Amino acid sequence: MSREDADLNERGKSHGRFADKGERPEDLEDLALGDDYALNPEYVDMVIDAADRGDAERLRELVGALRSEDVADLMGFLNADYREEIIPCLDSETLAEVLSELDENLREEVLDTVTPTALARALEELDSDDAADVVDDLEGEKRAQVLAAMDETDRAAIEQTLAYDDETAGRLMQREVLAAPQFWTVGQTIDHVRTAGDDLPELFFDVYIVDPAWRPIGAAAISQLLRASRETSLAEIMGPVTEITVDMDQEEVGYTFNKYHLISAPVIDAGGRLVGQITVDDIVGVIQDEGEEDILALAGVSDAGRDAGVWDVARSRLPWLVINTLTAALAASVIGVFQAEIAKLVTLAILMPVVASLGGNAGTQTLAVAVRALASRELNASNAVRIILREMAVGLVNGGVLAVIMGAATYAFFRDPMLCLTIGLALVINLFMAALSGILVPLALDKLDRDPAVSSPIFVTFVTDFMGFLSFLGLAALILL
Amino acid sequence: MSREDADLNERGKSHGRFADKGERPEDLEDLALGDDYALNPEYVDMVIDAADRGDAERLRELVGALRSEDVADLMGFLNADYREEIIPCLDSETLAEVLSELDENLREEVLDTVTPTALARALEELDSDDAADVVDDLEGEKRAQVLAAMDETDRAAIEQTLAYDDETAGRLMQREVLAAPQFWTVGQTIDHVRTAGDDLPELFFDVYIVDPAWRPIGAAAISQLLRASRETSLAEIMGPVTEITVDMDQEEVGYTFNKYHLISAPVIDAGGRLVGQITVDDIVGVIQDEGEEDILALAGVSDAGRDAGVWDVARSRLPWLVINTLTAALAASVIGVFQAEIAKLVTLAILMPVVASLGGNAGTQTLAVAVRALASRELNASNAVRIILREMAVGLVNGGVLAVIMGAATYAFFRDPMLCLTIGLALVINLFMAALSGILVPLALDKLDRDPAVSSPIFVTFVTDFMGFLSFLGLAALILL
Repeated sequence: MSREDADLNERGKSHGRFADKGERPEDLEDLALGDDYALNPEYVDMVIDAADRGDAERLRELVGALRSEDVADLMGFLNADYREEIIPCLDSETLAEVLSELDENLREEVLDTVTPTALARALEELDSDDAADVVDDLEGEKRAQVLAAMDETDRAAIEQTLAYDDETAGRLMQREVLAAPQFWTVGQTIDHVRTAGDDLPELFFDVYIVDPAWRPIGAAAISQLLRASRETSLAEIMGPVTEITVDMDQEEVGYTFNKYHLISAPVIDAGGRLVGQITVDDIVGVIQDEGEEDILALAGVSDAGRDAGVWDVARSRLPWLVINTLTAALAASVIGVFQAEIAKLVTLAILMPVVASLGGNAGTQTLAVAVRALASRELNASNAVRIILREMAVGLVNGGVLAVIMGAATYAFFRDPMLCLTIGLALVINLFMAALSGILVPLALDKLDRDPAVSSPIFVTFVTDFMGFLSFLGLAALILL
Repeated sequence: MSREDADLNERGKSHGRFADKGERPEDLEDLALGDDYALNPEYVDMVIDAADRGDAERLRELVGALRSEDVADLMGFLNADYREEIIPCLDSETLAEVLSELDENLREEVLDTVTPTALARALEELDSDDAADVVDDLEGEKRAQVLAAMDETDRAAIEQTLAYDDETAGRLMQREVLAAPQFWTVGQTIDHVRTAGDDLPELFFDVYIVDPAWRPIGAAAISQLLRASRETSLAEIMGPVTEITVDMDQEEVGYTFNKYHLISAPVIDAGGRLVGQITVDDIVGVIQDEGEEDILALAGVSDAGRDAGVWDVARSRLPWLVINTLTAALAASVIGVFQAEIAKLVTLAILMPVVASLGGNAGTQTLAVAVRALASRELNASNAVRIILREMAVGLVNGGVLAVIMGAATYAFFRDPMLCLTIGLALVINLFMAALSGILVPLALDKLDRDPAVSSPIFVTFVTDFMGFLSFLGLAALILL
């Protein structure tokens, strides 16, 4: 047990709420989760404590009280040794569910410790989309062994799913759907559900009404089926259907679900035929992931994964820092041109970073707003010119406000009206350039079908650094010296 | 029509895909939406064109072909005058749906143009949570007029919803639920649904099984009801239920839905009694919004709203820029202390912004990762110390790598080994401070129950600017001069 764990344990024990509880098995889940359903740090300590004492029975009891989502969460808080002790506590179905919940790097680690046969049994418990997701993380030989050990139908379903590109609708969909012709009645449909059993998905929310060529022509929520009388025909209750094409990017799928408040949607192939369905519970994760990707991309960092080591984390951040070293050095070279001016008036060296810094911040603001608007499809050719003009105006307005503030501050400190004029003009120019690059760069990247969140910050920071130094020092050379 | 609109129109016309289409009414929806269900800019132009020609019939046809979500989207791309022309094209139900889809600032504008009576009729078409959302945007007198014109039951439901705090489960939930005692059979439950009609929500996905005190003890998906035979009792098919308390923050509700892949969840009051349900379609929007909020907060900007004017946008960005002026000036004051050193060696003025800039970027990286991990509950007391130590190590590693790169570049340009040593050491110190502040500041804010995304960037940028100048110029004074 590390020192931090010991500290936490200490705290856990003094925590009145747990101290006097008898910890009967039925209380364990309450103990494990906070009011917001997040795992309690104190519970993690209890697990570590049991593992340290070698108390396998207690460990099994603690892990057994958790839902599989919480076991996956728990594993993220443990180190590799403790994780390995958890795995034998899980039955085949829980193991499968935990695997499908785990972050990629943890999952790869856990997969290494499970035998191909045990893995095959576990994967058979999952829906084809979730199972394919796990198999995708297996390397060459082990993947072959696991697939060989699986039931033939399950194997075929996984292989078909993996044939679609990563991050497309084909990967997210499950093949099992509830479909019916429009002349069926509600009663016939319900009877079909009662007998079809395994051919239907575990959970479903809509029945898709299809034509003889198996093309969706409408949909009805199953709560509508329940409301209607058994004699009602599906044609009477069906509404319009929002189809997803099998090669649609998952981010677009997320946009469509969010826009139309969909619970499930039919997936169609190039011929318009129904091949599966996507349900909203998978989309919630996609929307969460896409938002997180944008946050990390704007900060110039890729996700090294939960519990990654120092080297992996350092490596995930270096590319952007190295590129930034180049752009920062390039921007600084502008200062080199004005060495003589700085030597004459060192005050310039004090004020120039303020101009660059404020420009950088204003550029980041514009950029974040533009990236968000592009992601939510609120910015496109319809309003691009209007938004660009607005950003330019905002740059001038805020440049003007900051010019007055910094001008006044400069006068208070240096009593030099021409220096005030210089920094004021430089700020207006740099905030204008910040606005312009903050909106044009993401629009251009989007036009080129590149992710606007990924490389925009590099360009924008370079522009505002470069222009900050150039405008301030250049104006100083003209006005002051 | 503005020049940009004319430009776009021109482009729309030359776009082969639309040019030769006959535009029969049934084709209009296909014309309106791209493959990703986003509104086509060309369709927006067609609407503007019809409005400019005063062709009310064509306008009605174009707007009528759209779903209400797309009408709301369309309005976001139009200016206020065109928006006003759209409103008369909408029937009561569509108007209500459009209002509940619109962004807040557009909604307020549209609300001003609709009479209280028309508004009351429209709101009666909505679920109580959506209607309350709209009423919340009405000001004093108009709100009273609209509520007075409404049906008494609808008014009471809206007033009850508005009694809950903004951004809590109480605001998101709808009061109508499907609940049943555990001794009911599947057949009884289905018969109840067929007769209960208006007391049930428009769509529902789960039946909540309650005890006599109306406390949830289990839940069953309605697809399970369909599968089971009519004689099966609910007790046999019900599973565990994940309850949401009525005062839970919407961000926590989003976390819970995402974690357990929920489609709907029962909302309970302080006494544990069922008072409503939340469905996942409302949560998808919440998760999207929370992610967008973090992106904007990290960039130091609040959302001025779609189609906001120059002044509103400028105002939404000024607070952070003004604070940043203060912190940037404070950091620059460090440079003032070393004026004599810079006068002796102007090269220092060239290199010091590079140290500050790289520190700022490394700090932003750490911060973004920390904010994301806190939001997804992957960082808490269980692993905080481990993560802090890891970030410190990463700061030292990446500081070392950048020290070598910048050291070599400095030698190539200035041929001064001691200057290389100075910038190298300064980079290691500043990247270490960047890592430390990038992880400690968001953790501290989170501990104080403040949003870690909101004020962290100000602190972190200040630390890296200040330490960048201090470490580089201070070391230069010690080593070089």
